[in-house]
Amino acid sequence: MLQPANADGCGPLAIIAGGGSVPIAIAEAVTQRGRRVVMFPVRGWADPTAVEKFAHYWLPLAQAGVFRRHARAEGCRDVVFVGTALRPPLRSLRIDWLTLRLLPRVLHAYRGGDDHLLSGIARVFEDYGFRIVAPHEVAPEILMPTGPVGSLSPSERDRADIALALALLEATGPFDMGQAAVVAANHVLAVEAAEGTDAMLARIAELRARGRIAAPSGTGVLVKAPKPGQDRRFDLPAIGPRTVEEAAQAGLAGIAVIAGDTIVAELAAVAMAADRAKIFVVGINGDLSRQ
Amino acid sequence: MLQPANADGCGPLAIIAGGGSVPIAIAEAVTQRGRRVVMFPVRGWADPTAVEKFAHYWLPLAQAGVFRRHARAEGCRDVVFVGTALRPPLRSLRIDWLTLRLLPRVLHAYRGGDDHLLSGIARVFEDYGFRIVAPHEVAPEILMPTGPVGSLSPSERDRADIALALALLEATGPFDMGQAAVVAANHVLAVEAAEGTDAMLARIAELRARGRIAAPSGTGVLVKAPKPGQDRRFDLPAIGPRTVEEAAQAGLAGIAVIAGDTIVAELAAVAMAADRAKIFVVGINGDLSRQ
Repeated sequence: MLQPANADGCGPLAIIAGGGSVPIAIAEAVTQRGRRVVMFPVRGWADPTAVEKFAHYWLPLAQAGVFRRHARAEGCRDVVFVGTALRPPLRSLRIDWLTLRLLPRVLHAYRGGDDHLLSGIARVFEDYGFRIVAPHEVAPEILMPTGPVGSLSPSERDRADIALALALLEATGPFDMGQAAVVAANHVLAVEAAEGTDAMLARIAELRARGRIAAPSGTGVLVKAPKPGQDRRFDLPAIGPRTVEEAAQAGLAGIAVIAGDTIVAELAAVAMAADRAKIFVVGINGDLSRQ
Repeated sequence: MLQPANADGCGPLAIIAGGGSVPIAIAEAVTQRGRRVVMFPVRGWADPTAVEKFAHYWLPLAQAGVFRRHARAEGCRDVVFVGTALRPPLRSLRIDWLTLRLLPRVLHAYRGGDDHLLSGIARVFEDYGFRIVAPHEVAPEILMPTGPVGSLSPSERDRADIALALALLEATGPFDMGQAAVVAANHVLAVEAAEGTDAMLARIAELRARGRIAAPSGTGVLVKAPKPGQDRRFDLPAIGPRTVEEAAQAGLAGIAVIAGDTIVAELAAVAMAADRAKIFVVGINGDLSRQ
């Protein structure tokens, strides 16, 4: 079994990075706090240019051995999983020997939803002496604050849409699917499952263009919330400037996410994008009565 | 107020027809039973060629006066609403005087989900002396039977996927959104909201083509079920040969719908399409333990 080089939790931080700008934002925040970062961008998911400025080792999917070898050599014990992940067809994977030994447990995890998959993988890493930490444990400044980001706030009608979307996400939570929904004028327009938030917002834009949505442009809210009981160490909902642009293109009035339970890749850029697109972006408490 | 020409429920049947093949299947079944049918195809929704063989009056949306005038002249009291409907942007409607008088109630209905909208419109029609009847009241042979249609049946794994999808649809029922979901290998791939079943299946096909779905082709089930407490007089889930083809293109193992609570446009054609595509189509009871 692996004995990590350091066991005090203060050595270099390994970041296993999926797609999007969130892994980079976290790497920058942790570096600024004075902790060394070693990136493990996942091939096919992570942005090649963005990882250049950090020490990094490309990680082929299902090659746990590659990670273990380099992480051990770098003295990393703490590991962050972050960024968007695609669920690849199992048959497309080239599986190494270490992964093969882990496979029964990963396969078992694979049969469930995303939470099962991620928790299963995390347990495997922990068995090898690594410690999975939440992105916001190492960089709390990346969490969404309470209240509006940018100059606009949700209207009364928007608040009703937000409340309906939160109730819906609570109802779908046990099914371990998406973390996002779009509600406009008290009507559920979309619920996220395998397609991801980007594709869901693109669908709304397309339905609007085809005249399939009754609510006028400028109504409707994208709401993202963690699943009830979700392991906060990975797969927290995330938004960034691109989410704001996509929500605006979908003709929505704004975006609501759970304050303290959502990662914001670039807060200042999100505020600017929101003001430019004339939509609100708000961090809410789960309990709407406290808004 | 309108006094319909006949009040015994046995005069000609008015069919307000949306898109798809279901309205035509119902018109044919009712005609074969010896009852005269007058079609009111909705402009922009209904297939122009298919209504040709029946007495018909094109109905512009939001022109309730047109329907009332012709239905009265034809002596229709019973009205069936059937076929796929698009929810048009309110501002795109040219509203006639009768509709204008009804508008406050329709607008109130419009703010909710589909059920609210349809129930609201039905109440308006009933206030004018019409009687809204369920499609299967006038043509019970269009309802899905129990058991497999075609030669294939769901496997044990398919049954587990069906059970998960039914539980999900029960949980989303109170939100008055879609009536369909796709589950593959215990993983929720899609839930229908504003996009409709066709677009949802096209999305699965596209995600599969892009390698975004882990479960191999030939796994996964489309499940359609009425919303809990839904008014059975309209908007029952419906499938037809095209649904079968689309489910096959999405790489699913089959389709499960609620027996007796689902309209099947052309049962023989559905069975043929299922066998050709090598997928199952099964009518289940809501209670899976009785399968």
